[in-house]
Amino acid sequence: MIKKVNIADRRYQLDGNAGSDAVHRDPIYSYAVTQLIDDSGHTGTGLAFTLGAGNELVCQAAQHYANQLIGKDIEETMAGFGSLFQKLSNDQQFRWLGPHKGVVHLALASVTNACYDLWAKKRGVPLWKLLTDLSPEQIVATLDLSYLEDELTAADAIQLLANQQQTAAERMGILSAGYPGYDTSVGWFNYSDEMVRENCIKAVDAGFTALKLKVGSTDFERDIRRANLVREVAGNNVKVMLDANQQWNLPQALYICKRLQDMNPYWIEEPTHPDDVLAHQTLARAIAPVKLALGEHVPNKVIFKNYLQAGAAAFIQVDAVRVGGVSEFITISLLCKKFGIPVLPHVGDMGQLHQHLVLFNHIAMGHEALFLEHIPHLKKYFVNPAMVVNGAYQTPQEPGSSSDLI
Amino acid sequence: MIKKVNIADRRYQLDGNAGSDAVHRDPIYSYAVTQLIDDSGHTGTGLAFTLGAGNELVCQAAQHYANQLIGKDIEETMAGFGSLFQKLSNDQQFRWLGPHKGVVHLALASVTNACYDLWAKKRGVPLWKLLTDLSPEQIVATLDLSYLEDELTAADAIQLLANQQQTAAERMGILSAGYPGYDTSVGWFNYSDEMVRENCIKAVDAGFTALKLKVGSTDFERDIRRANLVREVAGNNVKVMLDANQQWNLPQALYICKRLQDMNPYWIEEPTHPDDVLAHQTLARAIAPVKLALGEHVPNKVIFKNYLQAGAAAFIQVDAVRVGGVSEFITISLLCKKFGIPVLPHVGDMGQLHQHLVLFNHIAMGHEALFLEHIPHLKKYFVNPAMVVNGAYQTPQEPGSSSDLI
Repeated sequence: MIKKVNIADRRYQLDGNAGSDAVHRDPIYSYAVTQLIDDSGHTGTGLAFTLGAGNELVCQAAQHYANQLIGKDIEETMAGFGSLFQKLSNDQQFRWLGPHKGVVHLALASVTNACYDLWAKKRGVPLWKLLTDLSPEQIVATLDLSYLEDELTAADAIQLLANQQQTAAERMGILSAGYPGYDTSVGWFNYSDEMVRENCIKAVDAGFTALKLKVGSTDFERDIRRANLVREVAGNNVKVMLDANQQWNLPQALYICKRLQDMNPYWIEEPTHPDDVLAHQTLARAIAPVKLALGEHVPNKVIFKNYLQAGAAAFIQVDAVRVGGVSEFITISLLCKKFGIPVLPHVGDMGQLHQHLVLFNHIAMGHEALFLEHIPHLKKYFVNPAMVVNGAYQTPQEPGSSSDLI
Repeated sequence: MIKKVNIADRRYQLDGNAGSDAVHRDPIYSYAVTQLIDDSGHTGTGLAFTLGAGNELVCQAAQHYANQLIGKDIEETMAGFGSLFQKLSNDQQFRWLGPHKGVVHLALASVTNACYDLWAKKRGVPLWKLLTDLSPEQIVATLDLSYLEDELTAADAIQLLANQQQTAAERMGILSAGYPGYDTSVGWFNYSDEMVRENCIKAVDAGFTALKLKVGSTDFERDIRRANLVREVAGNNVKVMLDANQQWNLPQALYICKRLQDMNPYWIEEPTHPDDVLAHQTLARAIAPVKLALGEHVPNKVIFKNYLQAGAAAFIQVDAVRVGGVSEFITISLLCKKFGIPVLPHVGDMGQLHQHLVLFNHIAMGHEALFLEHIPHLKKYFVNPAMVVNGAYQTPQEPGSSSDLI
């Protein structure tokens, strides 16, 4: 039984210009941390990610949700978590502050993730193991599929998972091979060209086969120069992703994306405002075969459904510490599977939780094991930091979701 | 010069079942109130509306924004308010909590509205008068049109306003005639059939020519029965709006909206999730000639742009105490004008501020003077409560935006 909840506001100043992008130039990586303390002695830890200011608002909202878990048994709770999620996310008065977005939804992510962590710790298994051992019916009972009925009913979701069960064993090889990572930290926005060059060389030497560069400069020529620089250093066998972090309006994006096509980007990420489904649709059609990636700032399953229906994104970057936690992450991954679109999470959690979720997506849902973003800047603050060796995440073995902070 | 800011958390318990809808069954009408105190002795008051729990989060976020106004001259601030709005709404770290939605954007509404109120009070004129006297260039300088460049540039906006100047005098008649109101309070969700019947009779007797009924019952037959009841009591010369407050999923909405067509609703409001642009598009096409209204929960100009581009809404119900205040309300009204879609605000402010804004929209922007929602439940708490006589809002004459609370 959950007997107590603690909410903590944790903020980490990064070194130098790490974390900077075209829109967020001075981030302080921060977590609103939910701890659920069970009378069995287990503690569930859940994270929501912010950039500093306002993290206290997410903490206060998390307290509001977490208080409602006191006295609950975690196994019973998770057996029907979908209903609880629906109830919490539609809390009569709190709902007005979203619905299903912004501070209150970030808070729900933190609390939801703590539930999953406690569940796995109490069973004594890593979260990926717990999730991959559940039946399709048990998985779907943890999801809230409301407002998706036009695309994905509960029966559809169960069938989709059931269809993958026969071949799941074939995909278990990923557990020993490791899940491929890509390196986001070679080209932060404020890094000098020389630093980007050095970082690229190091990343390729470390075994990474995919690298990301931040673009979105006021001076388009800077973006072009740096993108060409990364391509030149990395060579043609390495994938290079470009990330504009919402910096462009549609006319700008139409212009610059066509120019960036020459260096053959693997994707162009967040070209414009994350609410602008139709601008992304227009852009995707105009710049094909160049592909778009997005999702880091998309708050819920309904907007992801719209992006998928619009054919606007070739890669979906849902983040389980932005949407309503593991439950909604799985819901959105199921939607993506239905549409045949791969999931490559943004890692506000630095990949700690997501390394479990992409294993589940690959093994149980049949998603291709493409790449998981890797950002090492908070490694020293986690109890069990993600291990990336030769460019691949090593499968975590400790019970839980690897979310505990020191 | 603004020398001090006060933020107040004001909550009002309503009588009986007033305010109840299919999704929000127990609201406590609440305001996050920003007060800007000028060294001239004037005070600017701005509101954001919530349903109670979490209002304190909006207050805290409003404090964050309002603190940045200390030391500023209001005339100088408003001369270039568009730039300030863009800066505040893209505050480096706070932005992550939205962007442009949820708690932080509600807070920005409160602070923005306080600026407009102070501006009008210092000039000693009602806000409608201040706004209608500005030149197109001055109006556009108060707006942030970023991310709208594909539909509405600053030059487009100035031209659109300039085109209306010649005929503005003809539309001044509204000032003496009064702006038509419609009565939302006849049919709250939890009201009994008998109470709805009595309220309809009273509303028609009081001069209202348009009434709203809350629908979205679990039992579809209850909705049908009550809709027919309102039509029967009100007769065929009164417009009847039906409001589902997001209760239905798309398959449900497709079914029930077709059945509700028989009683000839003026519109069906918020049929499903407010983020689901494409579901509204599908629904609008399927149920034509029945029309959809929406906007009460749409947080920003980018999503309104998508709704307009999708042809999903026949009536736009933007609320200046939900989007980023007066500035973004005007921006969205310009977008609507471009698309030929009327603006009928949702009135989280109980119509206090919006009575000024619809006069501006009609006189300066050439929007048709259709209806402004009327909800009387907080009348006794305002210093200058909106006066509705024979179903029409009487033009406010006091300086400012009529937002001061007792």
